[in-house]
Amino acid sequence: MDLAAYLEKTQEIVDKTLMREYGDAYGDLYKASSHLLLAGGKRLRPAVLLLSADAVKKGRSDELLPAALALELIHTFTLIHDDIMDSDRERRGVPTVHTLWGEPTAILAGDVLYAHAFEYLCHALADDRSRVKAVTILARACAEICEGQQMDMSFEGRDDVTTGEYLEMVQKKTGALYAASAGIGALLAGGTMVQTDALFQYGLRSGIAFQIQDDLIDIISDTEKSGKDRGSDIRRGKQTLITIKAAEAGLDLAPYRRDLTSEELDAVVQQLQDLRIIDEVRAVAVEHADAAKKALSLIPPSAERDMLTAIVDFFIARGS
Amino acid sequence: MDLAAYLEKTQEIVDKTLMREYGDAYGDLYKASSHLLLAGGKRLRPAVLLLSADAVKKGRSDELLPAALALELIHTFTLIHDDIMDSDRERRGVPTVHTLWGEPTAILAGDVLYAHAFEYLCHALADDRSRVKAVTILARACAEICEGQQMDMSFEGRDDVTTGEYLEMVQKKTGALYAASAGIGALLAGGTMVQTDALFQYGLRSGIAFQIQDDLIDIISDTEKSGKDRGSDIRRGKQTLITIKAAEAGLDLAPYRRDLTSEELDAVVQQLQDLRIIDEVRAVAVEHADAAKKALSLIPPSAERDMLTAIVDFFIARGS
Repeated sequence: MDLAAYLEKTQEIVDKTLMREYGDAYGDLYKASSHLLLAGGKRLRPAVLLLSADAVKKGRSDELLPAALALELIHTFTLIHDDIMDSDRERRGVPTVHTLWGEPTAILAGDVLYAHAFEYLCHALADDRSRVKAVTILARACAEICEGQQMDMSFEGRDDVTTGEYLEMVQKKTGALYAASAGIGALLAGGTMVQTDALFQYGLRSGIAFQIQDDLIDIISDTEKSGKDRGSDIRRGKQTLITIKAAEAGLDLAPYRRDLTSEELDAVVQQLQDLRIIDEVRAVAVEHADAAKKALSLIPPSAERDMLTAIVDFFIARGS
Repeated sequence: MDLAAYLEKTQEIVDKTLMREYGDAYGDLYKASSHLLLAGGKRLRPAVLLLSADAVKKGRSDELLPAALALELIHTFTLIHDDIMDSDRERRGVPTVHTLWGEPTAILAGDVLYAHAFEYLCHALADDRSRVKAVTILARACAEICEGQQMDMSFEGRDDVTTGEYLEMVQKKTGALYAASAGIGALLAGGTMVQTDALFQYGLRSGIAFQIQDDLIDIISDTEKSGKDRGSDIRRGKQTLITIKAAEAGLDLAPYRRDLTSEELDAVVQQLQDLRIIDEVRAVAVEHADAAKKALSLIPPSAERDMLTAIVDFFIARGS
């Protein structure tokens, strides 16, 4: 099976299970909780968890579906809360939860998915010791996501964010949950400690590469393709590796912190290309993707390992 | 040791441990997370957890301190988020988290304590099977707290809330976490399933009694003693067992949904007393306290069991 087919299959299973669990949501709280959860999404974290499980012990993934769902629930809870913090109105082509139900219910909708995630994780068919360890890994990831989001918010008022700070933020905000996905998959499947650590590293580095590519997509991809408002990071004055590297090269993007016409945006992108900023940022994404793939060398060769490699390649090819 | 001395000792241990873990908080996120946590509090949930542990297996509580902290962290996380939802400015004599750090950081401050709670729970010294079960109990309690808070918020715009709905709300919002405290204490200490269930029921009923007494305190106790603004529930139009029973007796409290002088409030209380509403509500609190104490009959007699009985008596004696 190639990666596209695998991802489609996983997406179908995850969607179906979520629909069964949340499809007939009753009352505002559960309607709000399920709104974004059932609005689609690529279900990449579940896929990484299930592939990691099969990569260390073929055939184990079926029994670990509840753990895969747990990761998707955590991801969704963070999106709901982030959207409140960032006052975002739309996500996945639908209005955000707080836009429809108000902030109090949106806070609770996130909190309830957070709880369900830990319940699901404990429902995975695995030995008790591994499940306790999985809970601590997931909880640690959640704390790091909060730290990453806080860093991200604190960057907005600053113009002296360093590459090191940025990478720490991205590692926490995005890397931590991919690391938990891959690590928990390996752990619950019965992988050795070396394998579990290797897959944890794989996820961490993949997640960093993913996020850097996301920043690139914001300015190089067209809105229709990416589903995002092109150039929104620059217009909102968001600190990304692009703005940081641009500042280091003497290009101040602060004056573009306003509504930009498509032509103005093209001119900014041209400047970034002339200064080789985009190439430089892409090189950082590739570097982390390579580290992720290298970590996989500690896992025996298999179709699943190949797909994990293919996922990282997909992460850094998106939008181009 | 009498209950007062025991609670003081537990409070000291919990405070000291929390101070060690959160006292030198660095950065806005952890300062915000630790703010309310270190602002005092009676640490009743940790006390209930530790007493329940010793009640089923004397001497086990020392190894379960991390679990006791987990319960306090969950309690604090819910307070931080509730304060945002209710736009409350003060709690435990200090400004609320969102008042000092803004809503985005306050949401994250709650989220990070939520994560830490599950980490701490897994650090309790107990067998793996019990710890997995404890995680599911705590996660279930968290989901129920969210459901209870959502119900509580939904009551505010209504004047037809029934006693049944109110009791379901209170059971979820307050009962669930006391139930988890007592049940997890018994479970991790190695109690039998019957003992664990009995203590879970004890906690559930105690929590309901606690909350009903809290509603009574709002109108009968003076502000100085309770630390709360007397009559605030009536002024804010909050649905409590008092307003529900008053409505059933033909007394509409809606006209008092405004600033009230002390004299006006006294007049309302007099009306409630004349209609025997306060006696009736107190009787419901006593009924649940009795059920809690009855559940303890399934546990062998011990000093700890006596203190658990004393805690319930304390719950319904507060403010009078």
